[in-house]
Order: sequence, then C-alpha cells, then structure tokens
Amino acid sequence: MTDRGKHYHNECTGQALETVHGHLVDQDITLFAGCFCPFVQRVWVTLEYLGIPYKVPPLSYEVDPYKKPKELLDLSPKGLVPALRLDNYSPPRALNESTVIMDFLEDLAATSTKRSLLPPISDPYARALVRLQSDHINRALVPAFYRYLQAQDPSAQIAGGKEFRDAIEALVMLFERAEREVGGTGLWKEGGELGWADVMVGPWIFRATNVLKHYRGFEMPEGVKFPAWLNRLFEHSAFKNTCSSEELYMDSYERYAFNRPNTSQVANAINSGRGLP
Amino acid sequence: MTDRGKHYHNECTGQALETVHGHLVDQDITLFAGCFCPFVQRVWVTLEYLGIPYKVPPLSYEVDPYKKPKELLDLSPKGLVPALRLDNYSPPRALNESTVIMDFLEDLAATSTKRSLLPPISDPYARALVRLQSDHINRALVPAFYRYLQAQDPSAQIAGGKEFRDAIEALVMLFERAEREVGGTGLWKEGGELGWADVMVGPWIFRATNVLKHYRGFEMPEGVKFPAWLNRLFEHSAFKNTCSSEELYMDSYERYAFNRPNTSQVANAINSGRGLP
Repeated sequence: MTDRGKHYHNECTGQALETVHGHLVDQDITLFAGCFCPFVQRVWVTLEYLGIPYKVPPLSYEVDPYKKPKELLDLSPKGLVPALRLDNYSPPRALNESTVIMDFLEDLAATSTKRSLLPPISDPYARALVRLQSDHINRALVPAFYRYLQAQDPSAQIAGGKEFRDAIEALVMLFERAEREVGGTGLWKEGGELGWADVMVGPWIFRATNVLKHYRGFEMPEGVKFPAWLNRLFEHSAFKNTCSSEELYMDSYERYAFNRPNTSQVANAINSGRGLP
Repeated sequence: MTDRGKHYHNECTGQALETVHGHLVDQDITLFAGCFCPFVQRVWVTLEYLGIPYKVPPLSYEVDPYKKPKELLDLSPKGLVPALRLDNYSPPRALNESTVIMDFLEDLAATSTKRSLLPPISDPYARALVRLQSDHINRALVPAFYRYLQAQDPSAQIAGGKEFRDAIEALVMLFERAEREVGGTGLWKEGGELGWADVMVGPWIFRATNVLKHYRGFEMPEGVKFPAWLNRLFEHSAFKNTCSSEELYMDSYERYAFNRPNTSQVANAINSGRGLP
C-alpha cells in the first residue's frame, strides 16, 4: 500500500477544492466539513443542489481527533462533522447529523429557493418510497460499507462483500419498485433529476468504486440500468463539485482498510457492534 | 414470574380495544397492528392525532412468527408490523417502517386534515431540533431499551440500566435546548401540544414505567418537569386511546426479559449486535 497511510489530507483536492474557493465569503450558513467524510458530502451536495448560499472554510475539521479547533467544539461538543453554524441568530446556532441537516436545508429551500430533492408533497406515497430508500441506506447499506472495509480476515471480508452487495441490490429493488409504482424517483429514472436517496447514498457508492475496489477488489453490479444510474449520479454537477481526486480517498481510507485503532468514531462504533454515532 | 410467559395476547385490551372497535369499518387506510408492539403504537398514535380515517383489524398480526396471515405477507414480505395497506390504489399498495409511515401520514395530513405533529415549515430550525430529538430516540434510546430488557447477567443489567437512563437524560437535554432556543417543542412545553418526538418515544417511555419497572426495577428520573411531561403524554387522548392494560405488556415482554430465543426480529438484532430490523 506504498505510503498512503502517511498522508493525512486536511484540505480537499480537485473539483471540491475549486468549490471551496468559490465559497469563502461569509454567509448565514457555514458548513464545517471534513475533506473525505461521506456524511459531510451529503450535506454539501444538498447545499449545492438546493442553491442555498453557504460558506465552507478551506481546512478540514476532522482529520486529527486531537486537534479539533475550538470554533468547531463550540458548535458541536463531540467535534463531529458535518456541522452547520447559523449566523442569522444571535448567538449563532448549530446543527449536527447529516440527515437532520438535509431535512433542515430541504425545509429552508421550501420557502426560499423553492428547489427540492423530494417528490412534491401532493404525492405522499412517492415521498414515502423515497424515505424507504433512505431508511435502507442509513440502516443497512452504510453500516455494511464500514463492516466490509474494516473486515480483516478473509472470511469476514467475503461475508462483508456479500452483505454490501446485497444491500446495493436491495436498494435497486426499492428503486425498481418506485419505477413500477410512481414512474421512478431521482436519477434512477432516465431523464430524472437528482433526488433525496441519490444524495443519501452517493458518497458511499462513489467510495465503493474507488476505495472498496482498491482495498477489497469490490466490483459494482453490472447490467445496463445500474451503470447508467451511477454515471448520471457521478456526472451530476452538484455531486461532482464536492468530489476530491481519487488519491485523496485512497489515502484517507487506508487506516480504515487496515482497521487501525481510533480511526474514527464511525470505525469504533462498527468494531463494537453498535449503531453509528 | 408466575405464568406470564404462557400468555400470548393476540388482541388489544382496555382502551386500545375500545379504539379498535371504533375502527372496524373499511377505509382507504388499514393498519396492520400488533397488540403490544411499540413501533405499531407510534403509527397508531399518529393516525389518532392527525385525524386520518383508518381501519384496524381486531386481531394481532405479529404474535406467532410462524402464523403470519397471508393478508399481511402479501403486503410485507417479512411480515413485519406496522404495515399500512392503501386501498385507494389498484392493486392496493403497502408501506412498512414506523418512521416512514409517520412521515407519510404527516404529508397526507398536510393536504387533508391540516393537522401536524411538527413545528410549521416556516420555522425550519425548530423542525430540525425535533428531528435531532427523533434521531437520538431511534439511534440511541430505543436500542438501549432492548439491550437493557434483554440483558441477563447482573453486570449487563446494571450497564443496560445506566445506558437507558443516560439516553433519557440526553433526550431531556435536547428538550431543554429546544425550550431555550425556540420556546419548547411538543408536550415538554407546558401548554404545548403532542409533538413528533413525543410520539416517537412515547411507546418505550410508557413500557419503561411498567415493563422495565417490573422486570428490571427501573425508576424514571424524578424532579418536576420530567414527571409533568410524562403525565401530559400518558394522559393525551391520542396516546391513551392506543394503550392496552398493563397486564398485556407485562405478559408480552416476559420472553424479552428472559431473552428466550426467537423472541422477535428486534430481539435477535439486539442479540447479534446489529441495528434494528
């Protein structure tokens, strides 16, 4: 693995760095980010897609767990990213948890930019299908990603690979159900727009194509529709604008792939068999 | 524990049975319920509070995992309750997962009964605080309840009790934060109305006062505000209408308290250290 583990990136690279450079001006919303964190990426894609003004400081706030800046700890006692600081309140307020922040931004956009990642409220059933997709992503697919990546012995890696692939296939079944029942949701639908579940799962699917492929030899499902969906997702400007170069992910996940102690709170939770923090 | 374990209830009792008897007429929405299931109770309280017409068949659909009725299996391949059948589609559609169903009902009410469990969309920050409360309930408090109830050896029971109490205290801190920042949410606020997080957590808090008290000697936090909140919650008609007599819960949870094999999919997930199904 050459000297990947020695590289702790504390700044985005590639397209994501360009996006940072376009968001250095003070705004009501500041995103505290980590350059490789997929939970952060969810929030970042949401901000980009919904067209909500935001600032993102150029330095990562999560790389070194012993050097969390006071600015972040004031907002988020555990120092977790993503965190939003909302400066339109005095004193400023803060929010944590990627899914909570996504809902907040969706609600905010409803009365400002009028953009949305969800089907319209006039179709509660279509919205419910999207929420079923998200529920599966958060409770099955994301934990399976980490169990697979952190698995060390070969039999655990085989089981982890199967579990992760099963989780992807179950997601595809939910996408197909939505196709059958409501004509499709998000980018799974040809000609569709970026949707809630695409943003929820995108960061892990992306890391599966580079990190899991590199460290575990993982191959994505084949066929026609799945690769076409992947392509639409990875080429969507809101997603692309938040991606660093592959090198950054390879380096950042090396410590997960060898399951080094104290890699992160996420890694520790997976090792202890508990839910994600 | 006398002969509690021998009683498998397959029908609600007390106030809940009266509510069932008031909802036997066909409606667009049918709730497939289990008489002691807290995930079902969430959905049921939501239906009651939002004033959405529904039917609930009188028999429980979850007691015997080997005798799931075809009617339920057609809707929900794993036979999990709660499940909704939506007869205003042809063929009828189905929804699972208590949180997904709650969101569905909230969306449905927005364009029909106009009632809501959430703060108004014009206050996205207050809504986010409620979602932080729910996130904590689902990812920390509910799993802690089962770990505590299923713990067998004394040291695990002590640890489980501490974990559950800590989870309640963390929820109280989130309620207090909402009090400070947005004047309070849900029933925590004196004179407030039933809210999203009250419904999310209510079924487990209720079972803590009878099941955990009986089988684990658990005592609720004291003071003034916490008991006052409990009282407002337990006395709220939408909640009360879905409660059976205490005897039913005592009997139904006996097998959890002694951690008998195959108690339920929830129990199995907790035993294996995985997330809830």
